[in-house]
Amino acid sequence: MNITDTALDAAPGISRRDYTEWVRGAAALAEALRYSIQPSMINDGTGIVFGDSQYEAFRRGLWSPEAYEVMVIFEALNEPAVDGLPRGAEPFAEYGGLCDKLMILHPGKYCPPHFHPRKTESYEVLMGSMEVFYGPDGVPGPDERLQVSPMPRGSEWPAGVELPKGREATYSSLTSFIRLEVGDPKFVMHRNHLHAFRCPPDSATPLVVREISTYSHEPTEAARDKEFPLDSWRTINDNVFLSDEANTGRLRTEFRP
Amino acid sequence: MNITDTALDAAPGISRRDYTEWVRGAAALAEALRYSIQPSMINDGTGIVFGDSQYEAFRRGLWSPEAYEVMVIFEALNEPAVDGLPRGAEPFAEYGGLCDKLMILHPGKYCPPHFHPRKTESYEVLMGSMEVFYGPDGVPGPDERLQVSPMPRGSEWPAGVELPKGREATYSSLTSFIRLEVGDPKFVMHRNHLHAFRCPPDSATPLVVREISTYSHEPTEAARDKEFPLDSWRTINDNVFLSDEANTGRLRTEFRP
Amino acid sequence: MNITDTALDAAPGISRRDYTEWVRGAAALAEALRYSIQPSMINDGTGIVFGDSQYEAFRRGLWSPEAYEVMVIFEALNEPAVDGLPRGAEPFAEYGGLCDKLMILHPGKYCPPHFHPRKTESYEVLMGSMEVFYGPDGVPGPDERLQVSPMPRGSEWPAGVELPKGREATYSSLTSFIRLEVGDPKFVMHRNHLHAFRCPPDSATPLVVREISTYSHEPTEAARDKEFPLDSWRTINDNVFLSDEANTGRLRTEFRP
Amino acid sequence: MNITDTALDAAPGISRRDYTEWVRGAAALAEALRYSIQPSMINDGTGIVFGDSQYEAFRRGLWSPEAYEVMVIFEALNEPAVDGLPRGAEPFAEYGGLCDKLMILHPGKYCPPHFHPRKTESYEVLMGSMEVFYGPDGVPGPDERLQVSPMPRGSEWPAGVELPKGREATYSSLTSFIRLEVGDPKFVMHRNHLHAFRCPPDSATPLVVREISTYSHEPTEAARDKEFPLDSWRTINDNVFLSDEANTGRLRTEFRP
Repeated sequence: MNITDTALDAAPGISRRDYTEWVRGAAALAEALRYSIQPSMINDGTGIVFGDSQYEAFRRGLWSPEAYEVMVIFEALNEPAVDGLPRGAEPFAEYGGLCDKLMILHPGKYCPPHFHPRKTESYEVLMGSMEVFYGPDGVPGPDERLQVSPMPRGSEWPAGVELPKGREATYSSLTSFIRLEVGDPKFVMHRNHLHAFRCPPDSATPLVVREISTYSHEPTEAARDKEFPLDSWRTINDNVFLSDEANTGRLRTEFRP
Repeated sequence: MNITDTALDAAPGISRRDYTEWVRGAAALAEALRYSIQPSMINDGTGIVFGDSQYEAFRRGLWSPEAYEVMVIFEALNEPAVDGLPRGAEPFAEYGGLCDKLMILHPGKYCPPHFHPRKTESYEVLMGSMEVFYGPDGVPGPDERLQVSPMPRGSEWPAGVELPKGREATYSSLTSFIRLEVGDPKFVMHRNHLHAFRCPPDSATPLVVREISTYSHEPTEAARDKEFPLDSWRTINDNVFLSDEANTGRLRTEFRP
Repeated sequence: MNITDTALDAAPGISRRDYTEWVRGAAALAEALRYSIQPSMINDGTGIVFGDSQYEAFRRGLWSPEAYEVMVIFEALNEPAVDGLPRGAEPFAEYGGLCDKLMILHPGKYCPPHFHPRKTESYEVLMGSMEVFYGPDGVPGPDERLQVSPMPRGSEWPAGVELPKGREATYSSLTSFIRLEVGDPKFVMHRNHLHAFRCPPDSATPLVVREISTYSHEPTEAARDKEFPLDSWRTINDNVFLSDEANTGRLRTEFRP
Repeated sequence: MNITDTALDAAPGISRRDYTEWVRGAAALAEALRYSIQPSMINDGTGIVFGDSQYEAFRRGLWSPEAYEVMVIFEALNEPAVDGLPRGAEPFAEYGGLCDKLMILHPGKYCPPHFHPRKTESYEVLMGSMEVFYGPDGVPGPDERLQVSPMPRGSEWPAGVELPKGREATYSSLTSFIRLEVGDPKFVMHRNHLHAFRCPPDSATPLVVREISTYSHEPTEAARDKEFPLDSWRTINDNVFLSDEANTGRLRTEFRP
């Protein structure tokens, strides 16, 4: 290739062809695993690339096992569960609600380190293995919080985990590790706890995880036109990624001309 | 048979043999549909018979399509999601949390009319068809409640629905109807709304429904030894069945000697 | 119970209620595993009890892990593949054809020792584990036979295998053993080789095995009205069970009044 | 792009990256549908492109619904079933045996018109819809053939079927049409009958079909080192495609440097 092509390839973004192969292939896999995909669940925010530098993953191909932060999320339900609450619950409703997602990651790919001030999650592996890295203690905050059942301490990281280049530092405080398999009991991640996860690079298939959680407050571009049950929810972003680039990248997918 | 046997058969309760066939058969079906069953999810409360009169269902056999109120529930998760809440949320935490259940009903069988003051639910059909009967308006209560997205009105009941004998009256205010199929979008049932559902009597297979909901407060015998995240939760029964017998029956399964 | 009831229970046969629970439950499990069941595949020959003494299995219940010879077979295809053969192939067509079956056995239950002079089979486990007992050498016959790829020798039997009472002797020459799991490569059983298999008694689920084989010549009662592609096939029974009672029992299921 | 790149793109062949995305993505889909993929089933012949002109499909992307002749085949079993045949059957053994394949086609993609002098097939749709085009009468041959159950006549083609450019003529004598869906009874294609099939271009998922057939005689590059049960089988190619280019293309996949 000549310089012009190299420049084009280096521009951040994903081609429509590659995006379609990725997201529609993932949707077929979800259906095969009996997770029903409605047409509205496939949009320009379904495939998530956590920052400009991570688009390089698609030049190598999603089955090339290098470490990058890219994933697919199909959201089947995001119900505020505000209806029927007593009036006094209004300020706390943002901690409740119901969200049901399917997350698909190819070998070597990561969901990057982040935490949710409001959202409590649970994981169920449908295909492959899920390697979870997390902080066993909550992220400190100014207010007093209820604590009844702390996170398990997990084990040490296995040897030789390849981290996404340039983002190694964001993983340093996620010192606990657990590997979840198909058939395991549900694993709960409390709100305010740092976590990341990946599909092992030597996996024969993508990792497919179902996440049942409280409401997901995410101001992504795809969610721009949705209605909010309470006005105060309009400005909430409950995702705090440790990488600034991941914070921005999560909200918008860039397409190449 | 002689009188002694008739008397024995008439005694309320289910034999261990019949219970095992029912519940372990349902567990195998759940696994085949990729819903993982832990050993702890199979206990004496997994099969639910809503009152003494409903045990008759087993004498006819579960595939005989008469209307009875019996069902299986496998509970994979019941997470309070109290950890990390701000202190002020404590009185309202009982409206939140995460519950994940699989419910299996044989042809003609019902989950009887009830409502939950706290729990909001969503349904996903994995096998068969789910016929839902519900009250489109909330059950009146003393306190002011938030309302942002009322239940859809549903349609009229189809003709010829056979109701469980002697319990017809408990279904009378559930005037809305919707039939949910595999692949449909999630259907949300708000808290405080009367609902019941059944597997159609002419179904070739059991109905299998996955329910994602907020926390399930149920003082069943099987749950007797569990820990409560907050002391005030100890006495909550968030299930209100319109039939007194169903209220009692839900909490304990009777076994025949 | 009094003497009359005991006599009734001791009569060989299965009640309609128990048969329906067994076979329709198995059909639902098949569908959940994506094996499509047509209505014609459910009939009085779908559930197989290998002789009068084996009906006792149903009094204990199918989930009680004692050793009995009972199983369910759903036959999705039995294609002679005679069309288009050259005329000279007619005498040998009975060794060809295509049969596709799903076999379901509850914990502890066996398919009893037998061989097929014509049928070559292959196994694929869809759920549970399949413990296969077989004779590594072919059953001797009068004619010269082609041999190109003998059966593998297998391993010795594991310790403590409980055999069906009274039929132990029929298993004695099946000296090879192999345990097949979900995901294993296909295992081929050549024609003329003795074989039997079971679902391990401690299994959490039934064993579900898909068998792809050449044409299945079985003069069962359910097959009585089927058409034969060649007149000479009318009298073929390609199943030779070592137990006389199993030979008879395979062809007809007895129902209790 | 400059002229050099255009020339490169025009060269027939598929890049390793595109091949891997295609075939490993298909393997994951197969596993999700419970069809077990052994490592040996993924090789350079798993993805099939029926001639040089069809490689263009990959430049557009597999989800772009244009008509091309490309497909994936996973072969789980190809058993000659020669062992145990009587000596006299040897000349006719090539009409028997057992083959089990999974075939995956993206929207708009075809398996091109062909017939098998020896192989009888059956189809079972696991995902999507299968549109089958076939000749209801057998291809004439010099020898007398057995006929006991002719192919059904099928229906006329639906309107607006887009055929692969330049290959329209090869479809002209496949005048019968049938659309097969998930849950349909098995459909049998007798030997010596022309057939082709496609995944509808507007399909939300790939078409996934399981084919149970007699032995598959295919001298592909991937099969070069396999053993033959009978010497006379070494030179058999039982696939006759109407397009010369498809005949050649089926045997070898071209990779771009």
